[in-house]
Amino acid sequence: MIALNTNYQNLKDSYLFYNIAQKTKAYLAANPDKKLYRMGIGDVSLPLCDAVIKALHDAVNDQAVKESFHGYMPECGDPSLRETIAKYYARRGVELSPEEAFVSSGASDELGDILDLFSRESTALIMEPAYPAYVDANVMAGRKIVHLPSGEEDGFTPLPTEGLEADLIYLCSPNNPTGAVFTAEKLKKWVDYANNRGAVIIFDAAYEAFIEEDLPHSIFEIEGARTCAIEICSLSKTAGFTGTRLGYTVIPKELERGGQNVNAMWVRNRTTKTNGVSYILQKGGAAVFTEEGQKQIHDNIRIYKNNARVLTEVLDELGIRYFGGKNAPYIWMKCPNGMGSWEFFDLLLNEIQVVGTPGEGFGACGEGYFRFSTFGSPEDTVEAARRIKELLK
Amino acid sequence: MIALNTNYQNLKDSYLFYNIAQKTKAYLAANPDKKLYRMGIGDVSLPLCDAVIKALHDAVNDQAVKESFHGYMPECGDPSLRETIAKYYARRGVELSPEEAFVSSGASDELGDILDLFSRESTALIMEPAYPAYVDANVMAGRKIVHLPSGEEDGFTPLPTEGLEADLIYLCSPNNPTGAVFTAEKLKKWVDYANNRGAVIIFDAAYEAFIEEDLPHSIFEIEGARTCAIEICSLSKTAGFTGTRLGYTVIPKELERGGQNVNAMWVRNRTTKTNGVSYILQKGGAAVFTEEGQKQIHDNIRIYKNNARVLTEVLDELGIRYFGGKNAPYIWMKCPNGMGSWEFFDLLLNEIQVVGTPGEGFGACGEGYFRFSTFGSPEDTVEAARRIKELLK
Repeated sequence: MIALNTNYQNLKDSYLFYNIAQKTKAYLAANPDKKLYRMGIGDVSLPLCDAVIKALHDAVNDQAVKESFHGYMPECGDPSLRETIAKYYARRGVELSPEEAFVSSGASDELGDILDLFSRESTALIMEPAYPAYVDANVMAGRKIVHLPSGEEDGFTPLPTEGLEADLIYLCSPNNPTGAVFTAEKLKKWVDYANNRGAVIIFDAAYEAFIEEDLPHSIFEIEGARTCAIEICSLSKTAGFTGTRLGYTVIPKELERGGQNVNAMWVRNRTTKTNGVSYILQKGGAAVFTEEGQKQIHDNIRIYKNNARVLTEVLDELGIRYFGGKNAPYIWMKCPNGMGSWEFFDLLLNEIQVVGTPGEGFGACGEGYFRFSTFGSPEDTVEAARRIKELLK
Repeated sequence: MIALNTNYQNLKDSYLFYNIAQKTKAYLAANPDKKLYRMGIGDVSLPLCDAVIKALHDAVNDQAVKESFHGYMPECGDPSLRETIAKYYARRGVELSPEEAFVSSGASDELGDILDLFSRESTALIMEPAYPAYVDANVMAGRKIVHLPSGEEDGFTPLPTEGLEADLIYLCSPNNPTGAVFTAEKLKKWVDYANNRGAVIIFDAAYEAFIEEDLPHSIFEIEGARTCAIEICSLSKTAGFTGTRLGYTVIPKELERGGQNVNAMWVRNRTTKTNGVSYILQKGGAAVFTEEGQKQIHDNIRIYKNNARVLTEVLDELGIRYFGGKNAPYIWMKCPNGMGSWEFFDLLLNEIQVVGTPGEGFGACGEGYFRFSTFGSPEDTVEAARRIKELLK
């Protein structure tokens, strides 16, 4: 009999969002007249910007006429979009060849697929609190996982510890869920660690567009990163593509281990296991990088940032400690009065109908913290902030 | 140092389409005034039908307005599209629950991703001639591969041989490249083999819409398939989605091995490794299954079928043996006068500027055969047929 992948039996049930859904459902069943203020799931609420909508319509029109119809796209991405992405990096002084930028169906897909390039004997390092899929994708591959907890003492941006043995290092900055951003100095420590050990960094830059202070948007702003890092990006939060789907991945040509070139391996992977990303979506994505598109997406990002300001002003007034909210779309707050994550969740839901995400769901060291997403509507955010202030004052 | 996936070192360079591209490029460089008649690559030439174009535009408009904007889609597919797909199967008497139909980014992506569910110790069976990616995706996983050659004696639809030991069985019907279609009787033999041994069949039904005779469109028309098969489908050839991307996969809830349920594993895989397929593309795909969409895609398929008729009529007149062309978009012809695949390729390119695909590229048993795609334009196909007749008469 065929053996299935038995590593799936080692997956833990993912209770976080399921429990949130069950609890809110039960609350609404018992209180059908109440409106909820949802700031839990990190999904965007603003529609796609005009430049993207126009590009998508144009691309659909191209597909309607024989002369402009596009069949199979190049598996690694439309060459013009790859060049556009390389130019986007140049604005931060990062020089890329277009062949180092791969178009993807999104960061989530890519974070799963890219693991195929690494031996299953390697050890993955997850800095916690963390996005739960990092762990699960590696459990599915039977990879050993090392958890590196972080906390207020290191600003939720931990450094390599003495004797740390890890091969595949997940770094998410700006961080989900804490909103913390690694400084160039701290990233350099990880780049040096990776180069010294021969490890590879998987840098999740999904939230780079939210950085406003002088902090690295890309691991490739750090000297030495071209020999040890892969960067995975997404238009989901940058341009509201959560339901439209498009992302990109950067793999430098210098990245080699044991005589194998990672960029060349990824080309081979894509040409074998995909037939490219939709022409329509690539055209829509390209519009994000135009002057008009950049202006419009930053208008939207400003709305989300204003949501963050509304919430953090209240937390400041209440004297509640928090991280993020400035260079990131998440606010990571300390639960008041020593409350537990779920205890605080229940309090907010039952007393003021505000839904957030208990920090404990992102790893044990997240216990006692709570995450707010700032992707909701401005009206709901203002009302939620008012209720939080009233409840906790 | 981290170890990369060393199985990639066992991949053979894929020369087939590269060689074709090099040879045609060299020919055009030497003969800049010549026009080529390309019937090599299996890419479609007709634009998307009106029903799909309208649905895509409507979906883009939905993404432009806050009230109708869609963020993250369910990872396994929009429930209404999953129901539509289940209903599409019902027309052939196949009963599916919507939870057994998964929406994908296309068959190519899915054929790569689905292998994650199986142990790397399992043995894959590839019936040749075959689509080259079947082999490469399994080499990347380090899986042992058993090649089962087929030929004219079995109509390119081979049966399980005495003592065959295979765990993962690839079946492509209608077949790429031979155009041969398995009868229900022959499929039943494979289903029985798989159930007896505890193997799993991966049934590639990408060309089912081209079947016109009374032959199975789905492995699930065969009794017993629900306990041994996964079916991977695509709108690429059915509805011209090669560059637009959408597909679907059927995994019955009864499919279990060693106490693990394959449908449940795939749900877990998708929820971990994707954030769903684009809302826009799912809306476009749903339009394919409407009454209007079905009429329009079959109008297009008729044009391709007419291309096939034009070519096979010439082959009939010339007394050349071939397979396919009737229930499939490919024609698999015996090279005349005992010529080799590449020899015949060179002859057609140099003498009449017609480009096809040498059969040897699909496996050793394809030597001496040649594949024509019928997805080209009608005008080019008529002229290519005229030239073939003139050359070989």
